[in-house]
Amino acid sequence: MRVLIPDLPEFRALDVPGIEAAYYRADQLPDGDFAGVVAWGLPRAMRERVLARPNLKWVLTLTAGIDGWPDLLPPGVTLYNAHELHDAAVAQHAAAVLLASGRGLIRFAQARHWARGAAEHGPLWTLKDRQVVVWGYGHIGRELGDLLAPFGAQLTGLRSHSTPQEIGAALAMADDLLLLLPLTDATRQIVNADVLGQLRPGAWLYNLGRGELVDPAALLTALDSGHLGGAVLDVTDPEPLPDHDPLWGRSNVLITPHIASTTADMSQRAAGYAAGVLGQLARGEEPPNKVELEKGY
Amino acid sequence: MRVLIPDLPEFRALDVPGIEAAYYRADQLPDGDFAGVVAWGLPRAMRERVLARPNLKWVLTLTAGIDGWPDLLPPGVTLYNAHELHDAAVAQHAAAVLLASGRGLIRFAQARHWARGAAEHGPLWTLKDRQVVVWGYGHIGRELGDLLAPFGAQLTGLRSHSTPQEIGAALAMADDLLLLLPLTDATRQIVNADVLGQLRPGAWLYNLGRGELVDPAALLTALDSGHLGGAVLDVTDPEPLPDHDPLWGRSNVLITPHIASTTADMSQRAAGYAAGVLGQLARGEEPPNKVELEKGY
Repeated sequence: MRVLIPDLPEFRALDVPGIEAAYYRADQLPDGDFAGVVAWGLPRAMRERVLARPNLKWVLTLTAGIDGWPDLLPPGVTLYNAHELHDAAVAQHAAAVLLASGRGLIRFAQARHWARGAAEHGPLWTLKDRQVVVWGYGHIGRELGDLLAPFGAQLTGLRSHSTPQEIGAALAMADDLLLLLPLTDATRQIVNADVLGQLRPGAWLYNLGRGELVDPAALLTALDSGHLGGAVLDVTDPEPLPDHDPLWGRSNVLITPHIASTTADMSQRAAGYAAGVLGQLARGEEPPNKVELEKGY
Repeated sequence: MRVLIPDLPEFRALDVPGIEAAYYRADQLPDGDFAGVVAWGLPRAMRERVLARPNLKWVLTLTAGIDGWPDLLPPGVTLYNAHELHDAAVAQHAAAVLLASGRGLIRFAQARHWARGAAEHGPLWTLKDRQVVVWGYGHIGRELGDLLAPFGAQLTGLRSHSTPQEIGAALAMADDLLLLLPLTDATRQIVNADVLGQLRPGAWLYNLGRGELVDPAALLTALDSGHLGGAVLDVTDPEPLPDHDPLWGRSNVLITPHIASTTADMSQRAAGYAAGVLGQLARGEEPPNKVELEKGY
């Protein structure tokens, strides 16, 4: 089975029986037909060229999200994702930012002066008895629940089948609202002025899903009014966030550049994961994580 | 039993059978004799005046450390501390800063620009398989171990009876060296140029113990040379750290103003803890956490 593979040392080192590798770069696509493509750092322009090849049967995307792929896929091409590759790191990143806001680390990291007394310290809390609402509760949310249990945090998960009543009740009691939703037509700007207004004064918002989940104007208004205690954004709208954006430089806003799942050994881990899936495909087995295109994730 | 109690609403609300409260402020001490004192925000100058009263039998200090008290205590006066009051918050704070450095939160909190690509992101890691060495492994260390287990961190504890060989082996493998030691003659500047030199290049230092555990000049040298990956300091030498100190404003140094155990409900928790101990003393029971003065903690 001939497969398009990223031209990176970690992927070149793979040797999977039954797989003939054809290496691509961001600006160079090998000739001929392929049964599938391992998509890792594949620019959007290149995707269409890959999908135009006849006889393509599957795409394995190693990124956490699948934005863009479903709309591009021709009929009969199967999409697999690789959420296992990202879940553990994202869950740890979520724990990191939930703790960072409570311990004042955002403002202390910016300070050049020893703050004295409670007024200068600002509010400080631990995760004990903290009401953490995870909107988009799936693999990552469950892993986060395991991480936070010893801290005494109270986790509430909202899923796609949660009722408006359940959502309303969760928002009303949330100290921390963590977004892990995929981006679909149903979730675009799901966090708007109305939703932010339902949060308790001082609640924090954490977006590790997609920037477009949040209405940026409503977010800014909620921060400026002081209703929102603060925000931690690993994804933004637009993304990258422009240098002149008013979200930069605030003592209660932490912006990380879409690195929630990034670790130094990311390419190594991605190649290892791809090898496992390629082995299954070569043996005619069905790999996990087939994307249900009608759901959008 | 007449007892000196802080003149704060949370403590005034206490009603412990057998305890007659006499309220003090930082600048005002009631007349007469006292069986004991609940020390909370008691300035050093005031301590000597309290200890000079005849018939004083015990001191309950609600702070985490006991610096200063042992040297002042007259013979026959018992010192109790209140580490339970602080252990849980300090352990959560330790987890917070261990995660913050790995997820790049210190430099991202300072940034006003969307970093692109691995070079700009800088090193990122999770706690999975991270070698965390806790120097001063006691109540807090054990609690931290429980918190970090689900993250996959590998915790090694060093105690006062650890051998030089054990210490050397732990330092050589540490990715993160966390100081939770009390300050004694034996631990003053225990982290010197030699110790820092035994760490792996890129290792991080976290001091949640006392500022004087670390030689400040050696720390600065190790940061400037790049041997140390970074440092997180909740305590400093001197403390407060002066505004002109060269540790401020670095992207790999986080300074927090001695707030590792602070939470918004701190006074409330302290008063509740004190009520429990006062009840035991009034009933003639031996409270926990009698300080072993010869050990210094």
